[in-house]
Amino acid sequence: MSLAPPVPETNVLAVASHVVSGNVGNKIAVFTLQSMGCEVAALNTVQFSNHTGYRQWKGTRVSAQEIRDLWDGLRQSYLDDFDMMLSGYVPGAAAVEAVGGIAKELRAKAKADKGHEGRFFWVLDPVMGDNGKIYVAEDVVPAYRNLVPYADLILPNQFEAELLSDVKITDSASLEQAIAVLHERYNIPHIVITSVSLPLKGSQAPSVSNSRAQSPVQSVPPSTKTMSVVGSSMTSSRKPRLFKIHFPVFDGYFSGTGDMFAALMVTRMREAVHHDDAAAAASTPAGGLLLRDTASWLSADSVDVLDLPLAKAAEKVLASMHEVLARTCEAMVVELRRAVEARGGSDKVDSETVHLLRSRSAELRLARNLECLRNPEIEYRAEKM
Amino acid sequence: MSLAPPVPETNVLAVASHVVSGNVGNKIAVFTLQSMGCEVAALNTVQFSNHTGYRQWKGTRVSAQEIRDLWDGLRQSYLDDFDMMLSGYVPGAAAVEAVGGIAKELRAKAKADKGHEGRFFWVLDPVMGDNGKIYVAEDVVPAYRNLVPYADLILPNQFEAELLSDVKITDSASLEQAIAVLHERYNIPHIVITSVSLPLKGSQAPSVSNSRAQSPVQSVPPSTKTMSVVGSSMTSSRKPRLFKIHFPVFDGYFSGTGDMFAALMVTRMREAVHHDDAAAAASTPAGGLLLRDTASWLSADSVDVLDLPLAKAAEKVLASMHEVLARTCEAMVVELRRAVEARGGSDKVDSETVHLLRSRSAELRLARNLECLRNPEIEYRAEKM
Repeated sequence: MSLAPPVPETNVLAVASHVVSGNVGNKIAVFTLQSMGCEVAALNTVQFSNHTGYRQWKGTRVSAQEIRDLWDGLRQSYLDDFDMMLSGYVPGAAAVEAVGGIAKELRAKAKADKGHEGRFFWVLDPVMGDNGKIYVAEDVVPAYRNLVPYADLILPNQFEAELLSDVKITDSASLEQAIAVLHERYNIPHIVITSVSLPLKGSQAPSVSNSRAQSPVQSVPPSTKTMSVVGSSMTSSRKPRLFKIHFPVFDGYFSGTGDMFAALMVTRMREAVHHDDAAAAASTPAGGLLLRDTASWLSADSVDVLDLPLAKAAEKVLASMHEVLARTCEAMVVELRRAVEARGGSDKVDSETVHLLRSRSAELRLARNLECLRNPEIEYRAEKM
Repeated sequence: MSLAPPVPETNVLAVASHVVSGNVGNKIAVFTLQSMGCEVAALNTVQFSNHTGYRQWKGTRVSAQEIRDLWDGLRQSYLDDFDMMLSGYVPGAAAVEAVGGIAKELRAKAKADKGHEGRFFWVLDPVMGDNGKIYVAEDVVPAYRNLVPYADLILPNQFEAELLSDVKITDSASLEQAIAVLHERYNIPHIVITSVSLPLKGSQAPSVSNSRAQSPVQSVPPSTKTMSVVGSSMTSSRKPRLFKIHFPVFDGYFSGTGDMFAALMVTRMREAVHHDDAAAAASTPAGGLLLRDTASWLSADSVDVLDLPLAKAAEKVLASMHEVLARTCEAMVVELRRAVEARGGSDKVDSETVHLLRSRSAELRLARNLECLRNPEIEYRAEKM
């Protein structure tokens, strides 16, 4: 397996939380981006000892003013030329607006560069809540609504897609409607809804492949539960081009999966667009506008949904996610058992301690599993909806 | 080339500065450690927009209290079991003491685990100054003097070695004396002085190897200037076992080299000690105490200086450093020229701007050069002094 980076040279500004221990937010996004070959500027919006899923943590948040100051610092030293930006958790509406201000500035600079509008691409994860519950301040929701029109790709979960679209998602029809509303209302070119647990029309439960029977990851099979991601790149008239990818889910709660998903989408989207341009150049050497130079990397209306860079990127991202989660599950079982036994066995350990030990054992295992990032085996394919 | 991690599973606590843009402090140390397969807890002591070599930056320092709080946060959730700790720049004496407090606690825990005292190892980079100038507050110097006895390996530059030993280093004899004083006074087991520019007894200028004639890095040959690192692991009676490695230097000033050197030393020292244990187990299966379980991983007095894990680790570290610097130099020349031309050529760019552009172009290139970390070609060998 090669150590050559899979993506072309890419300067990414990554804005998200930092945890000392564990792998969520920028802690996992920055390493993922770097491992794929990106040069990363990492603006950390908090420094916490650990993620909040432990239910206890220490540390501090960065203020909106500090975010603006750091950006000024970059600008004054000519360190503000980014090809892409990834934004995740930002604490509070004022800080969300400060991050939005950075993206708007980068967007405006690219827009002014006629014929190269695609030289800036913003992947926005509008972190607001999950499973029907908002876990940020209420004024963060309108702050994100104001910013979505400046993004190129948003990665809401099902609940966040409802918050942004005002459509309650209960079945395939309402899901499609929510995506149509998002394209139409916000003019947002690309959308991936990252965790759809509805039964979708025409979906079959994916079979768990045995193609890696030699792999140690087979010792912890995924559960029988499945989920989907649903994506769309809009047409020139803001109509959805919808695909879904159905995949099996591992038992347990894993923090940081959304952040890793987002970082991988940054790299695989960039890669897919460059592949597209290379293929186009090979077939018509005279060539038109490169996709990478096109605003928001939006493919022509004639492109089939399954040929969209977004669909191809999502397939690879899910393949990596699946492999990292399989390795994580495998290690988790061993580590948790060892930790409980070291404390005298499960009779001796109270439930709060078990929760802490379980949270730690479920931290995503990335540093020793780079091959899962670089060259995953694609088992779950995009389908038209 | 393999993506399998070169080091055994290792939990590292890395304490140093964070910059949004560029590659110094924890920004390069954390990625280096992760890329080598370590699970890293990253406690950032500052968040600056960029490193101070640009002569302008924005951002904030973390207080001693915040450092203690983050440590409390780790401890209360059972996230405080570290195999190794790496500490770099820490702002101010109180913060240095707070970091020292963490190390002392981890040290005490390992010491209490009889027969496994080596299960914690602290690599301390006593960042105080360079080239005859202290660039921290004066009270940081005594703070470090108080902490050195708790470390396992210190990585001072020549000036910092003078500050700690009170020996002015002007030639081989005074250099050897400084190291003898450091072992004797602080009981510090391992020392590497990272930048010795003296002509040393018996040193010959290393020839620039042509073994990688195919490599693109040959396009920027190192200058004719050379430097040395000088290392020593003490005997049981605190006497030095001295080696030096002589290597050619690239023209230009590169920030972050000390931080990358330190992070690589963490991983290669761990690797060398595990290799030693594996070799010992193969020759005498009954075996005695493993080196990794021995306090400070201190080899028996019978071990030859060139067989010391420290010497072997330093050879690999310098090989990686040399390759990364070669790639950096190559990219730097191209990027700086492009940046100046984009601003209308050198006539149109004032000296302050040139300084900023040069600083940026000299940022270490790591994300796209992982093979330099993982499997470097050793060209410069340790020699006895």
